[in-house]
Amino acid sequence: MHLRVILPIIGDTFIEQIRTEVSAWVTAGTEVDVVSISRGPASIESEYDEALAGPGILERVAEATRDGVDAIFVSCGADPAIQAAREITDVPVVGGFEPAMLTALTLGERVGILQVLPNVLPMLRSLARRHAIADRLGTIRVIDLPVLGLAHDDVLVDRLVAQARAAVRDGEADVLVLGCTGMLGVAAAVQDRLAADGPAVPVVDPTAAAVQWLESQVRMRLTASRTTYRTPPAKERIA
Amino acid sequence: MHLRVILPIIGDTFIEQIRTEVSAWVTAGTEVDVVSISRGPASIESEYDEALAGPGILERVAEATRDGVDAIFVSCGADPAIQAAREITDVPVVGGFEPAMLTALTLGERVGILQVLPNVLPMLRSLARRHAIADRLGTIRVIDLPVLGLAHDDVLVDRLVAQARAAVRDGEADVLVLGCTGMLGVAAAVQDRLAADGPAVPVVDPTAAAVQWLESQVRMRLTASRTTYRTPPAKERIA
Amino acid sequence: MHLRVILPIIGDTFIEQIRTEVSAWVTAGTEVDVVSISRGPASIESEYDEALAGPGILERVAEATRDGVDAIFVSCGADPAIQAAREITDVPVVGGFEPAMLTALTLGERVGILQVLPNVLPMLRSLARRHAIADRLGTIRVIDLPVLGLAHDDVLVDRLVAQARAAVRDGEADVLVLGCTGMLGVAAAVQDRLAADGPAVPVVDPTAAAVQWLESQVRMRLTASRTTYRTPPAKERIA
Amino acid sequence: MHLRVILPIIGDTFIEQIRTEVSAWVTAGTEVDVVSISRGPASIESEYDEALAGPGILERVAEATRDGVDAIFVSCGADPAIQAAREITDVPVVGGFEPAMLTALTLGERVGILQVLPNVLPMLRSLARRHAIADRLGTIRVIDLPVLGLAHDDVLVDRLVAQARAAVRDGEADVLVLGCTGMLGVAAAVQDRLAADGPAVPVVDPTAAAVQWLESQVRMRLTASRTTYRTPPAKERIA
Amino acid sequence: MHLRVILPIIGDTFIEQIRTEVSAWVTAGTEVDVVSISRGPASIESEYDEALAGPGILERVAEATRDGVDAIFVSCGADPAIQAAREITDVPVVGGFEPAMLTALTLGERVGILQVLPNVLPMLRSLARRHAIADRLGTIRVIDLPVLGLAHDDVLVDRLVAQARAAVRDGEADVLVLGCTGMLGVAAAVQDRLAADGPAVPVVDPTAAAVQWLESQVRMRLTASRTTYRTPPAKERIA
Amino acid sequence: MHLRVILPIIGDTFIEQIRTEVSAWVTAGTEVDVVSISRGPASIESEYDEALAGPGILERVAEATRDGVDAIFVSCGADPAIQAAREITDVPVVGGFEPAMLTALTLGERVGILQVLPNVLPMLRSLARRHAIADRLGTIRVIDLPVLGLAHDDVLVDRLVAQARAAVRDGEADVLVLGCTGMLGVAAAVQDRLAADGPAVPVVDPTAAAVQWLESQVRMRLTASRTTYRTPPAKERIA
Repeated sequence: MHLRVILPIIGDTFIEQIRTEVSAWVTAGTEVDVVSISRGPASIESEYDEALAGPGILERVAEATRDGVDAIFVSCGADPAIQAAREITDVPVVGGFEPAMLTALTLGERVGILQVLPNVLPMLRSLARRHAIADRLGTIRVIDLPVLGLAHDDVLVDRLVAQARAAVRDGEADVLVLGCTGMLGVAAAVQDRLAADGPAVPVVDPTAAAVQWLESQVRMRLTASRTTYRTPPAKERIA
Repeated sequence: MHLRVILPIIGDTFIEQIRTEVSAWVTAGTEVDVVSISRGPASIESEYDEALAGPGILERVAEATRDGVDAIFVSCGADPAIQAAREITDVPVVGGFEPAMLTALTLGERVGILQVLPNVLPMLRSLARRHAIADRLGTIRVIDLPVLGLAHDDVLVDRLVAQARAAVRDGEADVLVLGCTGMLGVAAAVQDRLAADGPAVPVVDPTAAAVQWLESQVRMRLTASRTTYRTPPAKERIA
Repeated sequence: MHLRVILPIIGDTFIEQIRTEVSAWVTAGTEVDVVSISRGPASIESEYDEALAGPGILERVAEATRDGVDAIFVSCGADPAIQAAREITDVPVVGGFEPAMLTALTLGERVGILQVLPNVLPMLRSLARRHAIADRLGTIRVIDLPVLGLAHDDVLVDRLVAQARAAVRDGEADVLVLGCTGMLGVAAAVQDRLAADGPAVPVVDPTAAAVQWLESQVRMRLTASRTTYRTPPAKERIA
Repeated sequence: MHLRVILPIIGDTFIEQIRTEVSAWVTAGTEVDVVSISRGPASIESEYDEALAGPGILERVAEATRDGVDAIFVSCGADPAIQAAREITDVPVVGGFEPAMLTALTLGERVGILQVLPNVLPMLRSLARRHAIADRLGTIRVIDLPVLGLAHDDVLVDRLVAQARAAVRDGEADVLVLGCTGMLGVAAAVQDRLAADGPAVPVVDPTAAAVQWLESQVRMRLTASRTTYRTPPAKERIA
Repeated sequence: MHLRVILPIIGDTFIEQIRTEVSAWVTAGTEVDVVSISRGPASIESEYDEALAGPGILERVAEATRDGVDAIFVSCGADPAIQAAREITDVPVVGGFEPAMLTALTLGERVGILQVLPNVLPMLRSLARRHAIADRLGTIRVIDLPVLGLAHDDVLVDRLVAQARAAVRDGEADVLVLGCTGMLGVAAAVQDRLAADGPAVPVVDPTAAAVQWLESQVRMRLTASRTTYRTPPAKERIA
Repeated sequence: MHLRVILPIIGDTFIEQIRTEVSAWVTAGTEVDVVSISRGPASIESEYDEALAGPGILERVAEATRDGVDAIFVSCGADPAIQAAREITDVPVVGGFEPAMLTALTLGERVGILQVLPNVLPMLRSLARRHAIADRLGTIRVIDLPVLGLAHDDVLVDRLVAQARAAVRDGEADVLVLGCTGMLGVAAAVQDRLAADGPAVPVVDPTAAAVQWLESQVRMRLTASRTTYRTPPAKERIA
């Protein structure tokens, strides 16, 4: 299986890190490559960033389709251009929001999202309403670190644990989802820290969930419905 | 008052027509100008088109803000880039969906949208869910004419009347909304034809509704909330 | 345009004040007159008051229709007898709830209502559910001043600002609506005070919103649907 | 127990019939009396009728409270002035909608209402939304007989059976509610006719349900919450 | 009328107590008997307990049907095996959840449940969602006493009053429901204590509500719909 | 990985068939074994069957936990005893409903379930409401074949294709889910037949989806939340 990761930001800084992370989650035999986009923002932290990244992502989706990949992961917690991508390719494509949230739904009643900045809250709540799963979204809590300040270090884990504990203690969440695909490799640490001193609640990593989701879809030979995601009519378009 | 219309498509073909139409709806003293975008699709008929149009729209929103306009109308029934636009400007900005739908809510119980192609149905239903008004959306019916084939002629009115009559007869709608801002100047004719042979049901034109909405917002000195539409953090962005 | 304001309370005390306020919001050429009702309560602060005011309001609606007015505003935040009124007239008629709430929906995600007394909370929540917009109603906060104690003075503004600040700080509201049409002329002051020391959130005045709504409806030649608001069958009725 | 029935219409025509019907449903020891109202419509078939009946109903509620009755039934399927009534009395009071609908919820998944005229549909759907039980309302079907044309005869039963059968056949309803308290004494006949030639589905009579509800509430010493139904502030009111 | 109470737990300890309690709520002429089950848990405090009790309850439902009883009350606040029971009998059958919750809906806007242990919260919230009445469920508060530790003494009443007061004070509930049918005979005391020092809010006892519900259904000759509760196909089953 | 399949029915008839089917979906290195239950029904086609199967399933769940398996699949489309199972084990456990429905949510807007008999419809709709995903459930269509009559032959595929086509044509579904885990090995054939003569819509097999789900959960080291699924208190229980 050939999995293409589209990093919906400009620059090559994170490509190796993402490739390593994604490669750790795939099963034997799955080949991973990662591309960033040529136009767009340096990180996605607003509806504005998401809109700017759109054409660059779709260019990469078309390219991946021509390259004959089997699955596409747009590595971002806000699912930028995912609906549009499904219209133009028969290859399964997901972002970080849908797989992580749906995975969480079988693990506990109310889902709590841990997020970087308050700017993205309305965007995530809109996504939850759009997908009609908002009744299960218990809370979104913010750790107040910009995406580009994230690193797999103690500050990040400490802040995630603090917000997760508060959400569980106040009855806002039974299962947690990391809301940003840039919080790499910390889900297990947060989950273990929570279990050490309280009720065990699962912590879902969006990258892991997306990779599992895509491999599952490919194995089941499932792809997007053509009555929801219809092929766009041919016409002039200037990218 | 200075109202800037952003036509979220490439080319100048419709600029004069839109200017004439919008000018017919403004009150005395409102100046209207219309711009199209430099990159994007020739019409918006899919999520794909909407995503491609995003950066071009936002470029025009920033330009309009610098130009000191008082209100911005993105002339499209699917509200492309509207949330993103509100993040980067203090000027009131609406598309065609929100004003027309909310206007319709005071006129009847269930709203029926009359739309051009089946491709845009999921996009409009997603918008209704996103805004949490889907419980009032009774139906979306399709007239099967591409946007670029629309014209203020008998075929368009006939098809709209046929779908509107069917929606009312089958109890799917109490008020109708034209789902595309390219259906110029036909709402009154459809409304009159419906009233002539059945119960009177209102027909909302999205251009008219958007213009009224913006003039109202300016008079009331209202603009988007900064807790929902936060200013995007500064960072590198390549358009 | 001739706009008739029906003050759904007995007595002439507020007529001049309302006429001045409404006249400040209409566009050039709109004539305003104000009538109170002959039977009903001195103010509306309960379902009981609302029910008592019903026949008096409907009498004035029928009278306004005979007088040939173009639009009717029932000046009350709880929309008394509005549905009934639409059944008996072809003239556009709104109260203060629908226009203010729907205006607020385009300005921010969650709407917070600032209200006079706890007595009216269930009534407003019922209205939000009735109109199927309750998912967007973030909070209703009470300033604990009876309607007849309202005046455009510092106490009123101070209390509104205090409750608005608390609602925004606690994440309950992104946009505020004044819940009573008797809070005359203070929305701008509250909005400015909020912006001075925190994120800018819009404050919607129900009188302003209703006036804009009605002028917009008249310009668009829209009135209530006859499949939702059917003409009542003829029969004996003793007022 | 002393049960007061308020017939929310003018005239004495139906008083004896209602007294007989209600008396057939009470348990031993319950005394029944019936009053009509002095001002209002001859029947309730619109929001307009409901609003006109309000003050007359509330006058009777206050009178019943002074008379020391134990329970009050406002005999109408649209629950006119019920919320207002609960604000001004400690006596349990219901109309025909709430008890019949809530009774139906334990009998089957989707409730179908059989109603007299299309005019009342939006009113009943609004009630269902107001009470947040609309997700269980499967359908409202109309038999096209005005309230004053109802009688316990074959035409009424035939039309009810025809609509009920269609609702069950089309998967719209699993349990039926007679939507008008003027459809006296026919529920059992409709239920039996349905069972004779198809799956047994229950048919709820609103008068029976209301009487049971009130007797149950009195036995359980339950009455309306004073945090939902607060006592209206004292002030001048002209009836 | 013959009312059979099925206590969905093993052992005879509570049989006399339940018989006394239920007998206090029935009207003259209703005969009450109580049976426990032969297999299952000693109390129901989890989904696990509920599942274990299922076959034992259904065995008693079949037995009660053969015995010709008129109504069946499964005495538990979580409605164990109620849907299954309705499939195999024409006798009206309820548990403690549905009657108490639906009774509460006419008494106040938001219902608060007072419950024994946190273990049952997800089960009750699932029931509320299953019945589509979750929008009216304001809160579930826990008194942290195991079912088998309940007794009609001061500790129980004190804890119920403390949680009820907190729920009302914080605006979470307008009417309270005792969530466990083992909280025998304390509803009135809790209701009186609440009224003594604050706004009067009703407190619904699930046993009382269930008994009233069943007697009402029998009087109205109503039983479960056969399109919702279809008779299970014949096949081999090993109990 | 060791995957235990619990067939929630009595008898060994289907064990080999299920083992073959499940084994076809697992990845290399996953060991599969299948057990049926000692008490319960021969198939699950009603709430009654589901309740009867409960204790037998939970006995097998406890046994699997003692056996040290890594994941448990209860092979039934109605998720019998799944919530209870999660309370008593730390091993991931799913039935056929949740994984198939959640998988479908990323593939199209409205999900259509194809089911064996009308008896199970209320059970599946209740599950959808319980999990708060009912807004995405477009339809449930019945092929009218009892579970024990299912076989991988032309009749089954023909009936599934006929109902699927009708659901898509009538706009009820964009993605289909086989509602019974006894419809073995036919999803691909149905999907291919649909694509051959119309828009391509995905068809989700519940066994495949459950197997993928469990393998994914194990890889991600995720298991049920202990704030939703609390360990049942110790007490006497007679199985």
